[in-house]
Amino acid sequence: MNPELFGFLMDRLFADGALDVYWIPVYMKKNRPGTMLQVLCKEDIKTTVIDRILSETTTLGVRYYSARRRLLWRDQLDVETRFGTIPVKRVKDPQGRIRHVPEYEVCRKIALENNLPLRLVYDTVAKEAAKKMTNDEC
Amino acid sequence: MNPELFGFLMDRLFADGALDVYWIPVYMKKNRPGTMLQVLCKEDIKTTVIDRILSETTTLGVRYYSARRRLLWRDQLDVETRFGTIPVKRVKDPQGRIRHVPEYEVCRKIALENNLPLRLVYDTVAKEAAKKMTNDEC
Amino acid sequence: MNPELFGFLMDRLFADGALDVYWIPVYMKKNRPGTMLQVLCKEDIKTTVIDRILSETTTLGVRYYSARRRLLWRDQLDVETRFGTIPVKRVKDPQGRIRHVPEYEVCRKIALENNLPLRLVYDTVAKEAAKKMTNDEC
Amino acid sequence: MNPELFGFLMDRLFADGALDVYWIPVYMKKNRPGTMLQVLCKEDIKTTVIDRILSETTTLGVRYYSARRRLLWRDQLDVETRFGTIPVKRVKDPQGRIRHVPEYEVCRKIALENNLPLRLVYDTVAKEAAKKMTNDEC
Amino acid sequence: MNPELFGFLMDRLFADGALDVYWIPVYMKKNRPGTMLQVLCKEDIKTTVIDRILSETTTLGVRYYSARRRLLWRDQLDVETRFGTIPVKRVKDPQGRIRHVPEYEVCRKIALENNLPLRLVYDTVAKEAAKKMTNDEC
Amino acid sequence: MNPELFGFLMDRLFADGALDVYWIPVYMKKNRPGTMLQVLCKEDIKTTVIDRILSETTTLGVRYYSARRRLLWRDQLDVETRFGTIPVKRVKDPQGRIRHVPEYEVCRKIALENNLPLRLVYDTVAKEAAKKMTNDEC
Repeated sequence: MNPELFGFLMDRLFADGALDVYWIPVYMKKNRPGTMLQVLCKEDIKTTVIDRILSETTTLGVRYYSARRRLLWRDQLDVETRFGTIPVKRVKDPQGRIRHVPEYEVCRKIALENNLPLRLVYDTVAKEAAKKMTNDEC
Repeated sequence: MNPELFGFLMDRLFADGALDVYWIPVYMKKNRPGTMLQVLCKEDIKTTVIDRILSETTTLGVRYYSARRRLLWRDQLDVETRFGTIPVKRVKDPQGRIRHVPEYEVCRKIALENNLPLRLVYDTVAKEAAKKMTNDEC
Repeated sequence: MNPELFGFLMDRLFADGALDVYWIPVYMKKNRPGTMLQVLCKEDIKTTVIDRILSETTTLGVRYYSARRRLLWRDQLDVETRFGTIPVKRVKDPQGRIRHVPEYEVCRKIALENNLPLRLVYDTVAKEAAKKMTNDEC
Repeated sequence: MNPELFGFLMDRLFADGALDVYWIPVYMKKNRPGTMLQVLCKEDIKTTVIDRILSETTTLGVRYYSARRRLLWRDQLDVETRFGTIPVKRVKDPQGRIRHVPEYEVCRKIALENNLPLRLVYDTVAKEAAKKMTNDEC
Repeated sequence: MNPELFGFLMDRLFADGALDVYWIPVYMKKNRPGTMLQVLCKEDIKTTVIDRILSETTTLGVRYYSARRRLLWRDQLDVETRFGTIPVKRVKDPQGRIRHVPEYEVCRKIALENNLPLRLVYDTVAKEAAKKMTNDEC
Repeated sequence: MNPELFGFLMDRLFADGALDVYWIPVYMKKNRPGTMLQVLCKEDIKTTVIDRILSETTTLGVRYYSARRRLLWRDQLDVETRFGTIPVKRVKDPQGRIRHVPEYEVCRKIALENNLPLRLVYDTVAKEAAKKMTNDEC
């Protein structure tokens, strides 16, 4: 399959409700470099997802099996930072420690507008969020 | 395992009746680049496939689990083209659209004999097949 | 480096004038999966590109060397198709054969608006372009 | 996630009792190169393994499913070789053929001390082990 | 590019005189999994190789640069083994140590005809070759 | 080549003075998954590095070419943290911004001894180092 089609398929699968989509490079018969598509979705959209793959790709078949997931507790807050108000995800690890994950798309926009490295914006926001939240609530 | 052994193993697994065989590059402990072998086969040759892997490779064990598949409807026809009669697979996607997939090995031979890009032979045959079949039957 | 930063870096490098940007998965010391960044650019923006990489990533150094390129002749035309006017690249291969490459972003939009597989839009436009151009000019 | 953290996580997972740990390079959304972690473990340490992953990485969730394994029979013997006594694993393939796998860490030490290629030490020990064991017991 | 075309291209490039051909999985813009083709060839067939790539693939350009090589001394001998006469490559490493590399295609045929693991045929031939040659000449 | 040999080779190449060593998964002819080794070293140990590769691996030849590097300015300081004195690298990016990179092996030991996620130790040390250094000197 033409690699240009993959990006489109990924967008459509996320729009269909897929929880995760990624490609894995594989080696196939007859010296063909291949790409294995893996999609994680809830049971109730399984048919939609399989239909999408069979329509958009050149594959002749789709394999599927059940898996379970364990997810960390998380919520989202707005935090005041030097760059303005930023949505920050709070994630609680199995020992109850909280870490703060700034919203990617917002940091991306700030980095572009201020001509700053994204890494720097990220770290600054995460640090300010951690400080603020410790004072505010814990 | 010596990489030269992989091609041989793949041939043998297909001869044993495997539906699909591919390698995935993985990173293992102690800084070892590894190769994960995945084989898809029907339940009834599972033992043959596992025996083959355990005989041909240096692995000490094989993991397996059940998966289900959904396959597109397909059949095969012979189509007259400017390059002669070519077997062409007809595949029906979930919306009922037909696409035509020329037989790889035949196109390969034609490309070699006529010193043409394989891509060109493929596209030409697929186009002629689509045209012909539309006239003939649909 | 956090994988979220890669997409941003890629956008910035293309905006800086890079001709090509891609990642290669590599295995590094101490069992670390790594990502090697390769950028192709003209000599005159070399410093900008290196600065960008050293600012946006956590790498401590950048390697570079000269390479030459051979490019196929190509131009772009607007072609009337059943989906409207589409920009199509004409590419001439070393034997002088022309192939037609529809503009990705336009096909993408059409596929979304008409709820059609991108593959189908692509093939249809390429076929119509090839037909039209043959009649018009060659 | 920072690639430096992967090596540490791997060590910890093996210390927790994991049977196998490896990384697979994957392509994620938004042009992010990712790394998929796969761990094989017995049912009884599943919670420990999932906790470890959720604590050491930045992932928000872990997927898991059951698989079965078939293992080759094996034991370990000490073999006298020109390099001293070396632990050698005996592995029996499905046809009952025995092969001899010298202990990696011991061969590694010998190669370093004698400034010899590891490949040479390995092959020599395997060959001597095969010869010795044939004479001794089979 | 369709992955089916890669195997064909590889065959053609070797027939053109390429010394080495391989694919590297890469991540490209717009979430496209790509495949980078690398070919090693002598200066005098450079144009043929570039033409071949530009004809058989959908790429618009090819990059090239000079590299040097250091090769080990090697020759080839016929060796009598329990499986008949086998061509065996002798390779001399930088310290002057000889190793023996049986011809892959011949071992492959023997393994198939005798229904033996290729690994076993390989190791047996290499061992017999090493023994024989030591007696004969060194 | 047996993947177990790669880790050993990497250790030896770093001991020989290589600046960087990594593997790239590649697809080779005859359906063989391969591993391309890339080593970066100064001109003066080129022969040592090539000899090492030709001795430790089964390759028959090594390719090499010249490249240049641009490195960021960096030095190393000892920083007092809640975990004791830690060596921290200071790196200056092209815009003159300083970032702090704690020494991996020391953080690793602390994480193990205190049963803490390595990620947490890393981030804490980097944050304390940044704070301390700002007060002390800038």
